[in-house]
Amino acid sequence: MNITMHRFFISKESFAGDNVSITGQPAYQITRVLRLKRGDRVTLLDDTGREYETAIESITHDTVQGKVIANEPGIGEPKISLTLYQALLKTDKFEFVLQKGVELGITGFIPFMSERCVVRKPSESRIERWHNIIREAAEQSRRARLPVLYRLVSFTEACEQMNKPSLILWEGEKSRNLAVTMKSEPFHKASALSVFVGPEGGFTPAEIELARRHGIVSVGLGNRILRAETAGLAAISVIMYEKGEMGQK
Amino acid sequence: MNITMHRFFISKESFAGDNVSITGQPAYQITRVLRLKRGDRVTLLDDTGREYETAIESITHDTVQGKVIANEPGIGEPKISLTLYQALLKTDKFEFVLQKGVELGITGFIPFMSERCVVRKPSESRIERWHNIIREAAEQSRRARLPVLYRLVSFTEACEQMNKPSLILWEGEKSRNLAVTMKSEPFHKASALSVFVGPEGGFTPAEIELARRHGIVSVGLGNRILRAETAGLAAISVIMYEKGEMGQK
Repeated sequence: MNITMHRFFISKESFAGDNVSITGQPAYQITRVLRLKRGDRVTLLDDTGREYETAIESITHDTVQGKVIANEPGIGEPKISLTLYQALLKTDKFEFVLQKGVELGITGFIPFMSERCVVRKPSESRIERWHNIIREAAEQSRRARLPVLYRLVSFTEACEQMNKPSLILWEGEKSRNLAVTMKSEPFHKASALSVFVGPEGGFTPAEIELARRHGIVSVGLGNRILRAETAGLAAISVIMYEKGEMGQK
Repeated sequence: MNITMHRFFISKESFAGDNVSITGQPAYQITRVLRLKRGDRVTLLDDTGREYETAIESITHDTVQGKVIANEPGIGEPKISLTLYQALLKTDKFEFVLQKGVELGITGFIPFMSERCVVRKPSESRIERWHNIIREAAEQSRRARLPVLYRLVSFTEACEQMNKPSLILWEGEKSRNLAVTMKSEPFHKASALSVFVGPEGGFTPAEIELARRHGIVSVGLGNRILRAETAGLAAISVIMYEKGEMGQK
């Protein structure tokens, strides 16, 4: 499938056999922004993991009609399901984490509030913006499923609801590092895992203690002090790498 | 040494035995921004790899006089010397790469222009800003040496001047990936290496060919398409991880 073809997530309901009816934002992108014409092709994604190469058949005011030419499984989905529990950060940092996290292969994002968070609860329009960032990054990076943004929870709720095995990045952890942890069980063989990343000011010792009581394993990332958003992305990169998701498989 | 102490790179010439005379931007930060007082302590860095815990003795209009209380080798410097050859990117992306690169342990940055670069040569004031970003990130992340920003070169010059072993990230490389490459020689044992990262539009096939003729090894990063700045950061994270710089040593 053409690597440079434009990609759009659309609803499953838009498909009727090989015929597809594109409306809303993707139709606007196709007609007004990209100015594609009848006969041009796009890749459509229905969030099932498949990709649909589609020829544009007609364009009306707000609808693009297409015909599916070929469909195949997408290759952009990682085999590992990695959930990122991310403390709320200042807006640009948080959006950065969403975008880069999607590119690197995160399956789900769970924002949480912890003691040292300095930002307020996001507005509805902010959350809508976050969904758009995730969708655009997923389209651009060739994901075949849309990573899920879950509702904001408290750190305590996050600890209670997470699925093991689970890691928490902590700059105070000097005795256990990400490398050794990822090479040992249950992390080495896990096909799903979670990682917790704190706010700009880090976690409190009480929070680390709470996480540990829930079986979340604290790990350090070395001698340099990484900003919250850098630590998260470095950890995601390393986890994906350990899971063979950097081109090895 | 206190992890939360403020850190400043100052010139070697500021030291006279245990007495130190701080002027310019660090003095402004200490007096006006942080409003530190006589008796407060800061960590000074002379770019030799050592850290100097220093007590403030007096503050005048534009000079802070201090006395070095203790000095020790900094722990923030990686053992690996990793040079990043980074194509010019749009300003915010390029600055992002500088900041995150410093945090993750880059030793030197060499900006270059390649065929698909869409930005113009940076102005003097822009380069000054880049130096400041590097210094601030180095102070914040506990580096003990200031990463060096070299002058802008052409891609051809970059290929000619680079020190081997050297990698180039290329999304078209399907037969060799970063993981296998980092685990094989000469990369596995290298104490110094370089990595080339392209502009938003990637490298041209001719550029990859030129790089290979110079012995630069092209590697892929997997099935997802990473933005230029994400690819660089992911590769740096993985290289540092492979070199034991994520807390393992």
